[in-house]
Amino acid sequence: MTAPLRIGIAGLGTVGAGVLRILQAQGDLIAARAGRPIEAVAVSARDRAKDRGVPLDAHAWEADPVALARRPDIDVFVEVMGGHEGAAKAATEAALAAGHDVVTANKAMLAHHGQALALAAEEAGRVLRFEAAVAGGIPVIKALTEGLAGNRMTRVMGVMNGTCNYILTRMEEAGLPYAEVFEEARQLGYLEADPRLDVDGIDAGHKLSLLAAIAFGTQVAFDHVELEGIGSVTIEDIRRAADMGFKIKLLGVAQMTGRGLEQRMRPCLVPATSPLGQLQGGTNMVVLEGDSVGQVVLRGAGAGAGPTASAVLSDLIDIARGNRVPTFGQPAATLARARPAKGAVPAPHYLRLRLVDKPGALAKVARVLGDSGISIDRMRQYGHEEGSAPVLIVTHKTTRAALDEALAALPETGVVEGAPVAIRIEAV
Amino acid sequence: MTAPLRIGIAGLGTVGAGVLRILQAQGDLIAARAGRPIEAVAVSARDRAKDRGVPLDAHAWEADPVALARRPDIDVFVEVMGGHEGAAKAATEAALAAGHDVVTANKAMLAHHGQALALAAEEAGRVLRFEAAVAGGIPVIKALTEGLAGNRMTRVMGVMNGTCNYILTRMEEAGLPYAEVFEEARQLGYLEADPRLDVDGIDAGHKLSLLAAIAFGTQVAFDHVELEGIGSVTIEDIRRAADMGFKIKLLGVAQMTGRGLEQRMRPCLVPATSPLGQLQGGTNMVVLEGDSVGQVVLRGAGAGAGPTASAVLSDLIDIARGNRVPTFGQPAATLARARPAKGAVPAPHYLRLRLVDKPGALAKVARVLGDSGISIDRMRQYGHEEGSAPVLIVTHKTTRAALDEALAALPETGVVEGAPVAIRIEAV
Repeated sequence: MTAPLRIGIAGLGTVGAGVLRILQAQGDLIAARAGRPIEAVAVSARDRAKDRGVPLDAHAWEADPVALARRPDIDVFVEVMGGHEGAAKAATEAALAAGHDVVTANKAMLAHHGQALALAAEEAGRVLRFEAAVAGGIPVIKALTEGLAGNRMTRVMGVMNGTCNYILTRMEEAGLPYAEVFEEARQLGYLEADPRLDVDGIDAGHKLSLLAAIAFGTQVAFDHVELEGIGSVTIEDIRRAADMGFKIKLLGVAQMTGRGLEQRMRPCLVPATSPLGQLQGGTNMVVLEGDSVGQVVLRGAGAGAGPTASAVLSDLIDIARGNRVPTFGQPAATLARARPAKGAVPAPHYLRLRLVDKPGALAKVARVLGDSGISIDRMRQYGHEEGSAPVLIVTHKTTRAALDEALAALPETGVVEGAPVAIRIEAV
Repeated sequence: MTAPLRIGIAGLGTVGAGVLRILQAQGDLIAARAGRPIEAVAVSARDRAKDRGVPLDAHAWEADPVALARRPDIDVFVEVMGGHEGAAKAATEAALAAGHDVVTANKAMLAHHGQALALAAEEAGRVLRFEAAVAGGIPVIKALTEGLAGNRMTRVMGVMNGTCNYILTRMEEAGLPYAEVFEEARQLGYLEADPRLDVDGIDAGHKLSLLAAIAFGTQVAFDHVELEGIGSVTIEDIRRAADMGFKIKLLGVAQMTGRGLEQRMRPCLVPATSPLGQLQGGTNMVVLEGDSVGQVVLRGAGAGAGPTASAVLSDLIDIARGNRVPTFGQPAATLARARPAKGAVPAPHYLRLRLVDKPGALAKVARVLGDSGISIDRMRQYGHEEGSAPVLIVTHKTTRAALDEALAALPETGVVEGAPVAIRIEAV
């Protein structure tokens, strides 16, 4: 058994305390696997007195995370403070400059500064690992960076914000509108302090941008992730989609196309019987598609002390074992600058509109769609309610541009009431 | 870019040819990720003249795999010949003795000789990796050995023989009996040359024993895997189970209990709505459960040239990157000898029997079950057909011993026709 791997943990919230708890409870098991003990030498957090359910006496205390990051008696700096600017970034940079490896759970920091930090790590001859930043306990960074490294990846997808999936599932099950379930989730403590990070898809978008960088060998480009949150998803669409055999998910999709890199995080319809469609509640799912392997699906807890700490431990054990993989799977200097694709690859779409009760109304709608080159796969008209009837249309593959053209032309028909809803159907 | 990683491939069947094809097609991508090119220096197979759809001119030819394994100009010996004795084992041993790392897809060899080979590898200071041996393209060895290394694993489960899952799925969908679907599968080329490897659960049992060794830090103990194949699964049970909300799967389960290590590979009922229950056709699924991470589910292609070659490449890229993990996640000498548990942990069971048309018949059955301490969760009696009625019972948790006691006593009631069927229901 060689010398212990000495770590300093900045941030003793759920994740940091979880890591300490595991190290204390299963130190022997981890040492047997890692080939050496992993020892938390020092810790840092805002409030020293707070009871975290785990004793801190054995660890040196640093009030300042940057001071912790610079301590000469640590090998690895574990950044689990959160926040993409300020202390987390400063401490990460300080740790790398001091010659320490870094393990972080900070998707926001990496989504904004991943390329610069990866370069800094490599210049310092250090590794920067982040399994805990994406999909909690699911070892998806490892699966993609190492397990599928022999593949040219064709697409990565995921439901990676458990809160959003909880809200959508709960809306469907309880038949409650978005605003009500949002409030419920807030009271249950499921939402970030700034809930827009969850419901606007920002947090999930951060994660998608990290997966895309690894999958396609491109520099992280969170700014180019097309973001749309779940705030506009209605209970009516959830129900109508179910009628047609679909579920609505906040789905992230990244794929490399001839027109550039597509990164989308937005509500999509997926077949109800697909693994993504069957995903209920707060669970996460990531789908990785490669030219040789086909489709690999990973499912597990996307958040929580245990799962996230499990991911941090995986990175630490890697480092203890001497496994040193570049941050995004290849040297940061070799990552290409991704050209963002304009518009998404064609896909079927779900259309919902209200048709007024006039002869030939449906024909007019069909004609507008046809004029934009959109053909109809399935259509369903429901009974009239107060002079208009809900109509659901599943189109064949179409571009969003063609669809937007049709949507713009529909009011001119005089037979459509209100604004139609259009949602992409992702083939999964 | 440092010196290439030089490999020798023994076996040019589906997998070996698949590896060559990927190296030829995406050499640059792999070199970028691995930090160095991976170069197939020499190959070996039975028939040099056979057309494998991939050019062999650039590789030296060895008629004898052992000679290939000993070549001083290779770094890694890739064993994809198959067969657990004879040439595969001799060549693997020769490669380790010659100071080469080994990558193998050979579950049978590792199930029988894993401990000895892991020891030999470590004595030689070499690694022996086998991602391709379990669940094809799903990076499950990596997920378990590295991704979840911070967890005390509590249970691992899997549907890991695609052919068996295909047969069971097809029986249900087409309403065909086992023998007929077995014959279909044979004609489609889905079965091993010796089909017992598939349908008797041997192949899947090999895989389970490897997962168990990693999960619980024990020496591979394939001999202690409780094996039961799918040959006795009837279309009637598939349908009746579906009526009660279950699917029948050839499910492997390994778990460490106070009474020792349980390893079972046998037909089980799982809830139809669970990820395992929803698994159709030839796809594989592995469920990993750890104390911190909870449940992680992995799904993908369990066989085929592309997926299996993808797994071999993952091991090769690991070696090229300098990632060197012990075969079963910790030094082989530290693996404990597993004490096999006698009997499985209690579980609910599905019982199907035929009740003769006599007053009080059901009460007599209930009494026999009650006398063995078995309580009934759900019961369903169908209409009488020719003097007897099918009865389905879902029990509460019971041991198999109690159940066997009840099954032995049932004939004495005089109200049960023929032999009852009892199948374990695994909580997933």
